[in-house]
Amino acid sequence: MSEPRRFALTPGEPAGIGPDLCLLLARQAQPHILVAIASRELLEQRAAQLGVPITVIAVGPSAWPSAPASAGSLYVWDTPLAAPAQAGHLDPHNAAYVLETLRRAGQGCLDGDFAGMITAPVHKGVINQAGVPFSGHTEFLAELTHTEQVVMMLATHGLRVALVTTHLPLKDVAAAITPERLERVTRILHADLVEKFGIAQPRILVCGLNPHAGEGGHLGREELDIIAPSLARLRDEGFDLIGPLPADTLFTPKHLEQCDAVLAMYHDQGLPVLKYKGFGAAVNVTLGLPIIRTSVDHGTAMDLAGTGRIDTGSLQVALETAYQMAGSRR
Amino acid sequence: MSEPRRFALTPGEPAGIGPDLCLLLARQAQPHILVAIASRELLEQRAAQLGVPITVIAVGPSAWPSAPASAGSLYVWDTPLAAPAQAGHLDPHNAAYVLETLRRAGQGCLDGDFAGMITAPVHKGVINQAGVPFSGHTEFLAELTHTEQVVMMLATHGLRVALVTTHLPLKDVAAAITPERLERVTRILHADLVEKFGIAQPRILVCGLNPHAGEGGHLGREELDIIAPSLARLRDEGFDLIGPLPADTLFTPKHLEQCDAVLAMYHDQGLPVLKYKGFGAAVNVTLGLPIIRTSVDHGTAMDLAGTGRIDTGSLQVALETAYQMAGSRR
Repeated sequence: MSEPRRFALTPGEPAGIGPDLCLLLARQAQPHILVAIASRELLEQRAAQLGVPITVIAVGPSAWPSAPASAGSLYVWDTPLAAPAQAGHLDPHNAAYVLETLRRAGQGCLDGDFAGMITAPVHKGVINQAGVPFSGHTEFLAELTHTEQVVMMLATHGLRVALVTTHLPLKDVAAAITPERLERVTRILHADLVEKFGIAQPRILVCGLNPHAGEGGHLGREELDIIAPSLARLRDEGFDLIGPLPADTLFTPKHLEQCDAVLAMYHDQGLPVLKYKGFGAAVNVTLGLPIIRTSVDHGTAMDLAGTGRIDTGSLQVALETAYQMAGSRR
Repeated sequence: MSEPRRFALTPGEPAGIGPDLCLLLARQAQPHILVAIASRELLEQRAAQLGVPITVIAVGPSAWPSAPASAGSLYVWDTPLAAPAQAGHLDPHNAAYVLETLRRAGQGCLDGDFAGMITAPVHKGVINQAGVPFSGHTEFLAELTHTEQVVMMLATHGLRVALVTTHLPLKDVAAAITPERLERVTRILHADLVEKFGIAQPRILVCGLNPHAGEGGHLGREELDIIAPSLARLRDEGFDLIGPLPADTLFTPKHLEQCDAVLAMYHDQGLPVLKYKGFGAAVNVTLGLPIIRTSVDHGTAMDLAGTGRIDTGSLQVALETAYQMAGSRR
């Protein structure tokens, strides 16, 4: 066991299940020093509502703890709410609070106060409603860290899937698969598998864009005109890339067993299999950032906040993944 | 056990693994009268090459057998090759032979000689090379049976996935999702689940087109403008339809357990999960035909023909599915 490191945990939207997940998680001890960046009052209220006896311990830059919290305790870097938070009821007044918790976590990673950050879900709608343009954690952290291009990767035990395009209407996907984007995304995926996952020679399986990977041009030409030439250029630099392969044959044990990650061209080509395989235990990892950031793969589930009828599986995998990445980091 | 029915089995491309699959399968007895429509000489030669002792028994319209073949025997409706077939070596001279086996099977189903047909893979390229325009089994059978619209469905134990669009370049998919096509495909899927699968009130989960099913219009408008209104019209007629749902959350046990089929908008949205789940044991079912037709979900695997290193899993599921469909047919 290496020295315990310090990690930031952001519970996100205060009216959602994020605070609940952090509290339920704190019933067990963590191997590292995990600091929730949130309102102390919120956590204490929610713990009472859930009926889980968690001791909330205030910490912060002037007084970091030197050992992990024991089971039943949660470290918090107190960050005050603007208005009382009620489970299940969104309040735009707390949008600035949510962003401040993310800023503290991200800046703390940049400053070396944290080895990585793990995020519970935010609610994009209510932040925008408050008049702050916000399209998600990933974009917020890219801006905070002055990162031009990030890559979304989802992972579960035995499978990692990164995406060339993410939240685009399907009609715009084909035009977005350019040599520039494909090569940039592949370079980031490769570099982060080396630098953050400690894989010396990562092997990446690459999906085609079209059904049957275009079937030799009969079902689309992007494989011939864009994807194959881009992969060939990268292979010349020493990248270990296999493809483009048909997505419906790539996701089978024969292929998956021999690779470190799959690169899918778009959201619904890669994520249904990953979430099917990893149901309840998948993690979202943002690649390309100068910091380590992992996230749960689900939303705020407003209707379940305060009920305790939630599964901490995804948050646990998000924590484990961040711990592993920090340990593998070169 | 009901009365044994008679089914047609087409081994497809004579140089591929189709004949091998049929012979390996014949080592076990079938519950129904299975008639391979193929060259008797080819089957005998390939059996010798594989070293599997199968007795090939000639049958045909003038002399149908009255009971299933015993283990180690295979009924064949002899259909002569134009040129000797060699495992692994395509020969355009035999293209007409392949089509004749399909014609006999399809016409036999229409005429009531067969309760259904099960197809092993053909090689589209070599048929086209012979000067015959041919885009696949499905289109051939649609034409033979004068069927305007067919629907491709893949199935494995516990999951059925039908497709609104199939072999289209990805860039053309969004424009192909019209209210007319979506409603026609949904009607065919619903009707065949009732009529050929014996499901009285089928429940169908429908995917959105865009990531997160468009997220309320932020990631594409087809869900709001096309899919939701079409589903609403069909619900008014009594269809049990759920969706449009995000593809990456739909393919999880919570949703799948409560449905009879998933309707995906396009090939790589639905088939990677299905083939991941059903690896080696998936079947392709053509819906909308007036006959029952199932198929293996793989290709001719030319390099494996004659070697015996193949898995009959998909063909077995194709047979079981055809038997079940014929038994459930209304």
